[in-house]
Amino acid sequence: MARIFVLNPNSSIGVTAEMDAALDRLRTAGGPEIVCGTLAEGPPGIETQEHVERVVLPIARRFEAEPADAYVIGCFSDPGLALARENLSRPVFGIAESAFHLALGLGRRFGIVAIKAGSIPRHMRHVRSLGLADRLAGDRPLGVGVTEMAGAGVVERIVAVGTRLRDEDGADVLILGCASMGGHRAAIEAALGLPVIDPTQAAVARALGFLALGYGRAA
Amino acid sequence: MARIFVLNPNSSIGVTAEMDAALDRLRTAGGPEIVCGTLAEGPPGIETQEHVERVVLPIARRFEAEPADAYVIGCFSDPGLALARENLSRPVFGIAESAFHLALGLGRRFGIVAIKAGSIPRHMRHVRSLGLADRLAGDRPLGVGVTEMAGAGVVERIVAVGTRLRDEDGADVLILGCASMGGHRAAIEAALGLPVIDPTQAAVARALGFLALGYGRAA
Amino acid sequence: MARIFVLNPNSSIGVTAEMDAALDRLRTAGGPEIVCGTLAEGPPGIETQEHVERVVLPIARRFEAEPADAYVIGCFSDPGLALARENLSRPVFGIAESAFHLALGLGRRFGIVAIKAGSIPRHMRHVRSLGLADRLAGDRPLGVGVTEMAGAGVVERIVAVGTRLRDEDGADVLILGCASMGGHRAAIEAALGLPVIDPTQAAVARALGFLALGYGRAA
Amino acid sequence: MARIFVLNPNSSIGVTAEMDAALDRLRTAGGPEIVCGTLAEGPPGIETQEHVERVVLPIARRFEAEPADAYVIGCFSDPGLALARENLSRPVFGIAESAFHLALGLGRRFGIVAIKAGSIPRHMRHVRSLGLADRLAGDRPLGVGVTEMAGAGVVERIVAVGTRLRDEDGADVLILGCASMGGHRAAIEAALGLPVIDPTQAAVARALGFLALGYGRAA
Amino acid sequence: MARIFVLNPNSSIGVTAEMDAALDRLRTAGGPEIVCGTLAEGPPGIETQEHVERVVLPIARRFEAEPADAYVIGCFSDPGLALARENLSRPVFGIAESAFHLALGLGRRFGIVAIKAGSIPRHMRHVRSLGLADRLAGDRPLGVGVTEMAGAGVVERIVAVGTRLRDEDGADVLILGCASMGGHRAAIEAALGLPVIDPTQAAVARALGFLALGYGRAA
Amino acid sequence: MARIFVLNPNSSIGVTAEMDAALDRLRTAGGPEIVCGTLAEGPPGIETQEHVERVVLPIARRFEAEPADAYVIGCFSDPGLALARENLSRPVFGIAESAFHLALGLGRRFGIVAIKAGSIPRHMRHVRSLGLADRLAGDRPLGVGVTEMAGAGVVERIVAVGTRLRDEDGADVLILGCASMGGHRAAIEAALGLPVIDPTQAAVARALGFLALGYGRAA
Repeated sequence: MARIFVLNPNSSIGVTAEMDAALDRLRTAGGPEIVCGTLAEGPPGIETQEHVERVVLPIARRFEAEPADAYVIGCFSDPGLALARENLSRPVFGIAESAFHLALGLGRRFGIVAIKAGSIPRHMRHVRSLGLADRLAGDRPLGVGVTEMAGAGVVERIVAVGTRLRDEDGADVLILGCASMGGHRAAIEAALGLPVIDPTQAAVARALGFLALGYGRAA
Repeated sequence: MARIFVLNPNSSIGVTAEMDAALDRLRTAGGPEIVCGTLAEGPPGIETQEHVERVVLPIARRFEAEPADAYVIGCFSDPGLALARENLSRPVFGIAESAFHLALGLGRRFGIVAIKAGSIPRHMRHVRSLGLADRLAGDRPLGVGVTEMAGAGVVERIVAVGTRLRDEDGADVLILGCASMGGHRAAIEAALGLPVIDPTQAAVARALGFLALGYGRAA
Repeated sequence: MARIFVLNPNSSIGVTAEMDAALDRLRTAGGPEIVCGTLAEGPPGIETQEHVERVVLPIARRFEAEPADAYVIGCFSDPGLALARENLSRPVFGIAESAFHLALGLGRRFGIVAIKAGSIPRHMRHVRSLGLADRLAGDRPLGVGVTEMAGAGVVERIVAVGTRLRDEDGADVLILGCASMGGHRAAIEAALGLPVIDPTQAAVARALGFLALGYGRAA
Repeated sequence: MARIFVLNPNSSIGVTAEMDAALDRLRTAGGPEIVCGTLAEGPPGIETQEHVERVVLPIARRFEAEPADAYVIGCFSDPGLALARENLSRPVFGIAESAFHLALGLGRRFGIVAIKAGSIPRHMRHVRSLGLADRLAGDRPLGVGVTEMAGAGVVERIVAVGTRLRDEDGADVLILGCASMGGHRAAIEAALGLPVIDPTQAAVARALGFLALGYGRAA
Repeated sequence: MARIFVLNPNSSIGVTAEMDAALDRLRTAGGPEIVCGTLAEGPPGIETQEHVERVVLPIARRFEAEPADAYVIGCFSDPGLALARENLSRPVFGIAESAFHLALGLGRRFGIVAIKAGSIPRHMRHVRSLGLADRLAGDRPLGVGVTEMAGAGVVERIVAVGTRLRDEDGADVLILGCASMGGHRAAIEAALGLPVIDPTQAAVARALGFLALGYGRAA
Repeated sequence: MARIFVLNPNSSIGVTAEMDAALDRLRTAGGPEIVCGTLAEGPPGIETQEHVERVVLPIARRFEAEPADAYVIGCFSDPGLALARENLSRPVFGIAESAFHLALGLGRRFGIVAIKAGSIPRHMRHVRSLGLADRLAGDRPLGVGVTEMAGAGVVERIVAVGTRLRDEDGADVLILGCASMGGHRAAIEAALGLPVIDPTQAAVARALGFLALGYGRAA
């Protein structure tokens, strides 16, 4: 049976549990096994460029030690994506990149709900390096920490930020800039009337497609 | 059980059978039913703009009469995509559009193997209307008819055209501009050393992802 | 004497009469004859994708039966433009496409006054397929029906929408997204202080240029 | 009766005579008068940036002294276009700019036949400042002087250069980068099988359209 | 010792003195001599296209008569840049162009503080001809004359306009669209919290880099 | 006295010595001190993504421990640029990024001479993330190792690759994709007739400009 390994590169097992739960809708009897892991040596949340860089090598090492048919890096900064792709002979997916690709087929211009303002320049470099800047409507921060994402009131804040992305920036599809909010997708979609992308779901769905179609590498 | 309906809008049941066989790899026990149909009133092959336009309304009528959870238009001209999307409340996928989206995540610039030279301006309008012209490496014709696609020597011709798209135009991923060649993907990939996209597979894989993720409309 | 045939693909003869009147300024003694016709089998107004698709084949049939030196499709959705171009050996002009081309030489960024909100995605696909998305300032709907366009107060509503296109979206030239408002151009230009394009006039002026210069096909 | 004034800013009256003859097809009984003039103080041919700059002010002065309803600057460097537009209250047309606009509706990518290699950077700045660089297939020089353009063998050289623009650069419409070759358009079109644009004809046709439609300024 | 010649093409010697003072920070013991001159035949300020065109030939003549290792045209319209580059065998820099280049490495999108609204179309043509339109956030006028730039309250007006460029247009780096405000850079940077570019400083710093690196021509 | 610290992130002191020598032309009496260092823990040459990622944190640590007014990362992969910029309060320059910026003002389209074919995708991501893909003519590999760059025949191979970039890809300015070839710039420029950029020189010249102009951060 095929196996997809999803790594949460921060050390918060609650975040891993949220990701895992949101992936249930992609698990099928007889389909690939979808396994989530936590990078014990990661920081509690990846919020700075220093956090990003510190997990790059550990992610590659963990993937190299973990047999799987496809790999997903479960952090919206896609840390270590280039490295894991160069080192591994199986397809590797970043969740941000996968969310951007999915968004192209759900609307004309996507909005990103960033956790922190400091992540936005990182997102912009990523969107531009993929050649998708024309499709970005806007990127606005929630201003909470990764580890606060499970707290009360976060969905309301996401809806408030999403409303501005929709009404002021012209987004017709919304990307959650965080790995662990998939469980709230339906509530946010209902409140905004737009399709909402959980990037972890987007990446695992993409991995399932690659496995079914038999592609050996993503790009 | 969810149901994906794939319509071959030409009347050649051999083409439908080829499409159907190439979709087997996407069928799973417990997964959505994937059903292929043939548009009896279509031409034997869709090769001209007149052929395209003649099937637009019949495709919509057939979809409206066919209960399904997602619909795929099985012709590389994506005839009637805008109409079916406007009329139906379930997601509708064009195979060309789905192939272009998949190609973005398999390489930097895609090449298209067109069946006829006359289809190329139609492809170009489509690629441009999706805003993806920067990612197109080239589009080159085989110069055979849709109904000749099952004949001997067609794979060799596809490989010859694909070689030019790879070496002269810089394509690093190849799209078969035809609904029914999925069965030959592996042979062509082996000959060219590039990932090859069967657009019908691309569209059905996309439909499977939409159903798993619960999106109600494509765009 | 050369003959330009302008077909109103909706069945409202009042609309045809408005178009015809607005073309008077392009008629000259000794110049080409400019003849307007009505597509009897068209809907009263073309407001949905279904309306668009239903007139595609009838327009081609009518053109094929109507001897002329140049043809104009008098509907802002440019229905059947690709088909008529492929089937006829004389130049065929869409009025939307002609308006976009004219706008490039009248300002930097054009605004479109759409009749219905539902037409805007159709306009966007068209603008993008022509590669002109960078020149579009905005597209805003009037929210009236085609057949109401002759009513009182429509000019005032166009001016209100045009004011937003000018002041909020940065348009410096305005396109009327409708075939039959040419008679009100001067009033709207005076109110807004911007050049205003009646797409039917734009297409017929373009046809006159092609005939004078001797070009056999438009693209 | 309306009057269009076309100024040849070089002092070669033979060039003016060629331009004048190529405009005959745009003259109609009852239509605007189309008058060509020569800038006596211009150089025999405009081949360098110094030549361009030397005629900028004289062109504006001549236009200001010459009553007309529309003005055309008859040199493919469009010298003094910004100045004449700022100073005059009537529409002013550059022949290069008008050729680029016309080309957009005759094909996907235009090739330019430059007279001298030294003019190409000037053309590029112009094409880019109009935002049309994506539509340029190529620009290749003839390597003859303006005043040699009337000599034997020039049509053959244009056809040779045009063949490379068509076959190597992918041009599907050709622009003659010179004001006085309109008389040879038909021969070149026949040899190449592509539409060919004489920029002077393009500009005067555009002027005729503006006058008929009543636009007071070009941009 | 190398010599950089900076020409103020307007005749206001007060403007030249301001430019000269703002260049002090670029003068080093043993480094190139930086000499400012005034074009006596220029207008008091360059505010119209007529002003621009009138100084093009005088600038080239003055440069040709003035021995130097690099030349700077000290007017934000970059008058005569193409001519001086074609005629001289040493590098020539426009201050606007140099400011745009510097801005690319100081932020994502630059805002321009224009002196007069009438200059904005000229700036736009320039930005587009350099292929940098995507990096322009906005261009807003102060509405004062060149010769009033030394007056009281000008810094406050620049800050007010810069605030709109930053907050409404999204600029993260600001360009002063004038040759003589370099002395106020620090005050404006402090007020806005953004890097501010004095174009004259930008051009001379670029000239210093070219001389140190040994490049013979700019482009 | 101001101090610019240039770090060679590979451990080859011969490479550092070559960089240091090529920077002599930027050292002036009384000007900033330009000091080159070697990252002892780096690999002998940075040739793979693993090499790149392994030096990211060490570069930041070394910069944080090294007092300077500006920092340069002396490797054409610009490893750790985002991190060093986020962590340090002084300007940090990547040599690749600086070379791209300089190239914009030396020509229309730049060619890159890569050391290894495997670096090209890395360069492409970088060029795209800066939004400069339109200005890239091509990127072609030498196929030698970093540590072989000092060997005999390397200049000849660079000239051969540069000739293809110039003649086949249309480059009019060339970038050496390596930190240590600045000493051969003049020979390569003479052989090719194009301006050639040593990226280390480009970055240090840019640093000198930033220090002279007083900008505290690059972007």
